[in-house]
Amino acid sequence: MTSAQPNGRILLQQCLSAKLMVQPATEDEEAKYVTINRGLIVYVCFLQGANMEIVEKMAKAALNTRLSDAKNGKLVSVLDLPGDVLIIPQATLGGNLKGKVMQYHRNINKEEGENLYRAFVDLCRKTVQGQEKSKDCDVKAGTYGNRQVFSTDTNGPFTHLIEF
Amino acid sequence: MTSAQPNGRILLQQCLSAKLMVQPATEDEEAKYVTINRGLIVYVCFLQGANMEIVEKMAKAALNTRLSDAKNGKLVSVLDLPGDVLIIPQATLGGNLKGKVMQYHRNINKEEGENLYRAFVDLCRKTVQGQEKSKDCDVKAGTYGNRQVFSTDTNGPFTHLIEF
Repeated sequence: MTSAQPNGRILLQQCLSAKLMVQPATEDEEAKYVTINRGLIVYVCFLQGANMEIVEKMAKAALNTRLSDAKNGKLVSVLDLPGDVLIIPQATLGGNLKGKVMQYHRNINKEEGENLYRAFVDLCRKTVQGQEKSKDCDVKAGTYGNRQVFSTDTNGPFTHLIEF
Repeated sequence: MTSAQPNGRILLQQCLSAKLMVQPATEDEEAKYVTINRGLIVYVCFLQGANMEIVEKMAKAALNTRLSDAKNGKLVSVLDLPGDVLIIPQATLGGNLKGKVMQYHRNINKEEGENLYRAFVDLCRKTVQGQEKSKDCDVKAGTYGNRQVFSTDTNGPFTHLIEF
C-alpha cells in the first residue's frame, strides 16, 4: 500500500478513552467536546489526488484492520471489538520536512479536503452503526479546520500508519 | 526525506502534559510512570538498515524542527520553546497493511532496535540538557519492548510524521 506519493494517510491509535474539542469557547459559551470510551482514534489526512475511492479504502482499513486486543488475547477489528471510533482531521500528517520546517505542498485544498472528510466520517458512522454487533458504539468526529484540542488515556496506543 | 523504503520513522505530537508507564506493576510493587509537562512526544520506530547516522538525523529532526507555538505566535523547535521531551518506542509504526492485518517484516531485530533506541534517547538528552536554554527541561523515555501505557493532554497534537 505504501508509495512515495500517497493520496491519503490514516494514523490509528488504540484508546481506553479520548476527548476532543469540537467548538472553541466564545464569550457566551464554553467550549464543546465529544468523548469516546474504549476504541480507536483515527487521524485522517487527505493529499492531492484523494477521491471517494480513496475515502472508501481508508474507512475500510480503519474499521476492519485487526489491531484491538480482544479478551481472548487475539487481535480483532474495532468493528468486532466492538469499540468506539474518534475521527480527527490532521492536515499536518501530510507534511514533509524541508530544513527545519514542515511543508504541506501535497495537501489537498481545504474545500475538497472538507468534503472528503465529511464523506469519511459518514461512511465510518454508517458502517459501525449498520452492523448489529457495533450499532450502539459511538462514532465521534472533530470539526475540519479547527485546532484539535485533545486528550487520551491508553493501555498502549500501538500506533499504526497506513498510506493510500 | 521520504522514500519508499525508509530506515526509520518518527511521529511527533505536541502536548501540554503526558504520562508513560516504564515498569508494569508486580505483586509487590505498583507500576512506575514518567511524566512530562508542555513539550513534545516522539514516537520512534527503527526499520532494517537503520544505523547511528540515521539515529543522529532522527534526533536532530525531532529536536530542531519548528513545530511548537511560541508566545509570539511563531513556530519554534522544542529546544527553543524550551519544552520537555517524551520518547516512546513504537515498533508498530513500522507495519504495512496486508489484507486485514499489519505485518512488520521490515522492522529491525529487537537487539539492534534496543541499541539504537538507547542511543537516540541518550543523544536527545545530551542535546536538550547541553543547551543553556533547555538544560532544566525533562527528557523522559519509555522502556523498549514494554507495552507503552500512555495518556496525554494536548492543546492540539499537530501530528507530524518524518521518515529517514
